Amino acid sequence: MAGSTFGTIFKITTWGESHGKALGVVIDGCPAGLSLCEEDIQRYLDRRKPGQTAISTPRKESDQVEILSGIFNGRTTGTPISLLVPNTSQKSSDYSQIASCYRPGHGDYTYDAKYGFRDYTGGGRSSGRETIGRVAAGAVALKILNQMGISVTAYTKSIGPISIDMDHFDPEAIAATATCMPDRNADRLALAFLAECMQDRDSIGGVVECVVDGLPAGAGDPVFEKLDANLAKALMSIGSVKAVEIGDGVQVSKAKGSYNNDPFRSVHGKITKKTNHAGGILGGISDGSQLIIRAHIKPTPSIFSPQETVNQDMENIEIAIKGRHDPVIVPRAVVVAEAMTALTLLDACMLNMTARLDYLTDFYRK
Amino acid sequence: MAGSTFGTIFKITTWGESHGKALGVVIDGCPAGLSLCEEDIQRYLDRRKPGQTAISTPRKESDQVEILSGIFNGRTTGTPISLLVPNTSQKSSDYSQIASCYRPGHGDYTYDAKYGFRDYTGGGRSSGRETIGRVAAGAVALKILNQMGISVTAYTKSIGPISIDMDHFDPEAIAATATCMPDRNADRLALAFLAECMQDRDSIGGVVECVVDGLPAGAGDPVFEKLDANLAKALMSIGSVKAVEIGDGVQVSKAKGSYNNDPFRSVHGKITKKTNHAGGILGGISDGSQLIIRAHIKPTPSIFSPQETVNQDMENIEIAIKGRHDPVIVPRAVVVAEAMTALTLLDACMLNMTARLDYLTDFYRK
Amino acid sequence: MAGSTFGTIFKITTWGESHGKALGVVIDGCPAGLSLCEEDIQRYLDRRKPGQTAISTPRKESDQVEILSGIFNGRTTGTPISLLVPNTSQKSSDYSQIASCYRPGHGDYTYDAKYGFRDYTGGGRSSGRETIGRVAAGAVALKILNQMGISVTAYTKSIGPISIDMDHFDPEAIAATATCMPDRNADRLALAFLAECMQDRDSIGGVVECVVDGLPAGAGDPVFEKLDANLAKALMSIGSVKAVEIGDGVQVSKAKGSYNNDPFRSVHGKITKKTNHAGGILGGISDGSQLIIRAHIKPTPSIFSPQETVNQDMENIEIAIKGRHDPVIVPRAVVVAEAMTALTLLDACMLNMTARLDYLTDFYRK
Amino acid sequence: MAGSTFGTIFKITTWGESHGKALGVVIDGCPAGLSLCEEDIQRYLDRRKPGQTAISTPRKESDQVEILSGIFNGRTTGTPISLLVPNTSQKSSDYSQIASCYRPGHGDYTYDAKYGFRDYTGGGRSSGRETIGRVAAGAVALKILNQMGISVTAYTKSIGPISIDMDHFDPEAIAATATCMPDRNADRLALAFLAECMQDRDSIGGVVECVVDGLPAGAGDPVFEKLDANLAKALMSIGSVKAVEIGDGVQVSKAKGSYNNDPFRSVHGKITKKTNHAGGILGGISDGSQLIIRAHIKPTPSIFSPQETVNQDMENIEIAIKGRHDPVIVPRAVVVAEAMTALTLLDACMLNMTARLDYLTDFYRK
Repeated sequence: MAGSTFGTIFKITTWGESHGKALGVVIDGCPAGLSLCEEDIQRYLDRRKPGQTAISTPRKESDQVEILSGIFNGRTTGTPISLLVPNTSQKSSDYSQIASCYRPGHGDYTYDAKYGFRDYTGGGRSSGRETIGRVAAGAVALKILNQMGISVTAYTKSIGPISIDMDHFDPEAIAATATCMPDRNADRLALAFLAECMQDRDSIGGVVECVVDGLPAGAGDPVFEKLDANLAKALMSIGSVKAVEIGDGVQVSKAKGSYNNDPFRSVHGKITKKTNHAGGILGGISDGSQLIIRAHIKPTPSIFSPQETVNQDMENIEIAIKGRHDPVIVPRAVVVAEAMTALTLLDACMLNMTARLDYLTDFYRK
Repeated sequence: MAGSTFGTIFKITTWGESHGKALGVVIDGCPAGLSLCEEDIQRYLDRRKPGQTAISTPRKESDQVEILSGIFNGRTTGTPISLLVPNTSQKSSDYSQIASCYRPGHGDYTYDAKYGFRDYTGGGRSSGRETIGRVAAGAVALKILNQMGISVTAYTKSIGPISIDMDHFDPEAIAATATCMPDRNADRLALAFLAECMQDRDSIGGVVECVVDGLPAGAGDPVFEKLDANLAKALMSIGSVKAVEIGDGVQVSKAKGSYNNDPFRSVHGKITKKTNHAGGILGGISDGSQLIIRAHIKPTPSIFSPQETVNQDMENIEIAIKGRHDPVIVPRAVVVAEAMTALTLLDACMLNMTARLDYLTDFYRK
Repeated sequence: MAGSTFGTIFKITTWGESHGKALGVVIDGCPAGLSLCEEDIQRYLDRRKPGQTAISTPRKESDQVEILSGIFNGRTTGTPISLLVPNTSQKSSDYSQIASCYRPGHGDYTYDAKYGFRDYTGGGRSSGRETIGRVAAGAVALKILNQMGISVTAYTKSIGPISIDMDHFDPEAIAATATCMPDRNADRLALAFLAECMQDRDSIGGVVECVVDGLPAGAGDPVFEKLDANLAKALMSIGSVKAVEIGDGVQVSKAKGSYNNDPFRSVHGKITKKTNHAGGILGGISDGSQLIIRAHIKPTPSIFSPQETVNQDMENIEIAIKGRHDPVIVPRAVVVAEAMTALTLLDACMLNMTARLDYLTDFYRK
Repeated sequence: MAGSTFGTIFKITTWGESHGKALGVVIDGCPAGLSLCEEDIQRYLDRRKPGQTAISTPRKESDQVEILSGIFNGRTTGTPISLLVPNTSQKSSDYSQIASCYRPGHGDYTYDAKYGFRDYTGGGRSSGRETIGRVAAGAVALKILNQMGISVTAYTKSIGPISIDMDHFDPEAIAATATCMPDRNADRLALAFLAECMQDRDSIGGVVECVVDGLPAGAGDPVFEKLDANLAKALMSIGSVKAVEIGDGVQVSKAKGSYNNDPFRSVHGKITKKTNHAGGILGGISDGSQLIIRAHIKPTPSIFSPQETVNQDMENIEIAIKGRHDPVIVPRAVVVAEAMTALTLLDACMLNMTARLDYLTDFYRK
């Protein structure tokens, strides 16, 4: 069925394969009146581009976005914004290897099992390039959230055994380091670790963390549309994510209530929390404190070491994957996590605008 | 907005508060022809009932389900199945304490922030009793899945520091132990640990694991409707869940690709995997091996130790929560996790029936 | 699949069969803070009750609504409102006739074709009693709309050849006449015509018209979610409706542009239209003038004259339907059309609250 | 909000304005394995192209479709199909007239009222060119339906006072005549009538009829997702449609039950109906006979006669619209109606595949 649409009011639909003509996204439900140009989106796409550092593929993807609709005189009109990124880099490679066998850790087998055949060039729709549409749409959501006073920041929290030190958190390092770690020392250690991985023809996993500031209490809905439930879906829908945590996350299963409960305090007539184990969400609704979410990302499945697998003739074979592959997915997933968080939050904030009768009567009686 | 509906084809809508007249669920999109009676549902509701063991509240909730529609001559007709469970146990307690202040770790404050006021009797809609509708609907989904050859089994994997030993996995212990642990030794240790918690007027978290056998490859959709994404949402939507893992989960962020990739093998002409770090999902689509998901559940927020909080007059106060509260949520969440997993899988399996053109032509040309 | 849910933000799910235990509706997404009691809903249900006039079945249905959830201290809490109406009148009739054959004009055959069997008692889910849930939910939507300054009025426009005279429009006659015609003279003529129909053991069709005042310009969305498109779906979803018109409706296909275009005029600094052929909608969006919609309703399919049909053994037979049946559906459909219009409008008005960026920034920056 | 997405499983999202860079559609949920090339789509787009006859604008729009994704080796892969049609004809016209005032019968005023400003070049998103995406997606749906044994045929039934004679129905005339009338005599009369309209600087409305053959009984769902309800929405969502009829349509409001009920007959062991007043739908579900739907289309709002309206300074003015405009919309709406009907039917047929338990068990147990 249709799996390429996300959101209820701010609704995006992505399309495109790794090696097709282009990739893109249609944003429907964007409020009218937002100043928007290609540069607003391009700078987010540039953050996910490969070929920029020692640990990313040398493949040069220009990934230039073009706005095809929805803007008039520099502002959004309220009608769908179609964004397109042409594929320029796909060369007519030799795909006979991956065409005829199932790469371990990839979706090759499951796509075949579901659809009867698959686009085997560059991973088709299961390629990381699928995230271009998410990031482009996320850029628009982020611009709106910023105007609402809400900021979203994602970064690499750890790569394999190397974690950032929160006491040395340096926000400027996120954009400046190849690892997207907000800690230059951890970045250095991680790069050394990654160099080893590459030498071993292996890859490594890591963690992306995303924090949100300025989100008022009240976003998210009870029961199935809890804010954390939708954030979990949003992040788990990113390829290679195998776990999602909110606040203390997996630690809560070993914690005691006396520690895990965040005490409320009134400070200058405003409700605050002394701690934030909950990560900014209580009962599925934002509580006004910082939102904290993490995604655990598996190691790049394409490794150069030989691996066991099966070919189309159902023979057990061994393959060694060729081509250009990053030893770690995490740094390039950072901006994707930021985008998915933004899309989820903006939709929740829009839905929240009808939560009370007086919101409606104020709006229509004014 | 509307947060009480879950699913695309097999669609459920739950309703009801802890201390209202009743709770219930409407199941819409249930296939016609399923033999169904109240006893099919009751045995799942009985699994989530409190008042049954030393570690659950002595409150007696009969929680008897009544089928109000959608069944004719013992079989589902394809029209909505309305299930109702009257609230019989709510006594006219003194709610002045929780009416006037925000309990730490609960949704009291966020409901007030969102809606302007809240039903403070027994937690209202944010009560654990909200899960009655999920479990009742899940029972129907489970019955259908079983007839499709798919089984879903959830159990307590750990309570605080006490984990089950997978080498001593005893499926019969799930129903037989108070902790729902499939390991009688771990159950004993956990009960001792919980006794300590209660003596300390404290509570503890834990982990529910859910495994699915018999699910064929092909369920789930690319991009936003990945099977793991929807399972993550389903489980994270259960109150008190703060992290969701698929397969190796959080371990993948420290793993190498050479370890994490599951080699494919052809066995008797069938594709299998030698390992299952992926937990049965690749590229968002089931791969035919066992599905493995875990939910990390926070400690019961209602504890009897004094806690800091704020009252309605914005004064900083201290409260000690009264009443009846389990020291751990996990055992009662087991059947809820099973239900949510079943609901997600059945919907994905239904959607998968239109994935190929020949499925349509076979169906309509026959 | 699931066909029993309607709406995007203000979302209702109805359930129940003619002769089951009860019928009901769950309203999810109702704004918090609305004063609501059973009497608010009951007075709309009373308008659709049979057994009240010479032209409706003598069957006494008490149709007493009970609110089961979503209200606290007399106001809506923002959580689902579950409404239940017990079935009290169903007597253990002899259903062997309709169980074994397909009544012409009814859904008997199509339900069997779709689901493999059907609930044949009183029409099951395809009974007119299905509309109880719509009317109960519509009552809540109407109360909210009224507080927003929007009123919805439906009435019988014609029964067979008898039409109301708009020059003698008497709003009070809607509730006072058995036909729900706002014209006491037309009512008299229609009653005489209906008496003839009944004598002939026949039935007759008619037209319901619904007008909306106070709806500001801006409700409805371009392309597929046009306000008129959603109204057409809403009204066509009522059993027995075979055509829906907006404004001049079918007349436009014979009209010239110079006549059909409504000239705009500025009156006291406000945009108005000199005529309203468009029925209050331009480009799918409300234009601030009166909304006008009509539903054409077929004659009651249950007639007492003998009819040709087929029985379960595929034999061609003749049946004469027994029981109690109104000679015309229209008067009882009036309140249903009013409800469906209200549900559609409220949802559109809620969605409209996020149409502009400054609506969001005003809301979140305030 | 988002109004540009249509469908539940076979889900399309259209985008683009009259005078933007391009228009397009993303089809998500298309089954894998369909042979598809640009020519399959182009021939439908060619049917809606203007500039082809005396009664359509001389504007030459090449409207060449390009497939950007979702196809591999000539077949659909199950992933989104992105279709793009560049805008080549928009010339830098003088839009000062329509920029500064509201054209009667157009969406100019309502777009301004909703969004605060509008894209006034060529009607922006409310232009008839918006239907390009519908037709392109409809072409894909029609190809699938044909392979399922279902055919959809739309044609002009009437233009102003000139109606086709069903006794002289000539299917080949639909494509061969400028009016798309399946009756060459009516075509001649209509062309003469249109010539008069043009001389009078006026325009005229008309009726499109759409019939479906081969649709088995069982498509459509009870209550809100009735097949006729969704068809009504689909057709009413086409700009300029002001009424939708199913089967006898508006005639039912004057009909008696003894006439309107279609008698069932068993013919060669198959259920048939002697008449088809119902237009192929009973209880919201297809009954296996021919589906018949009609859309009433208003006269082209752009006329060359002077009209009263209001300008941006709220002054009452008179305008005479310039440019190129067809005197009748109907012939170009024929293929759009066909597309919308196909999209609705395919989705209903897909949803119907899960209506019975044994459909699921047969599929998953095979």
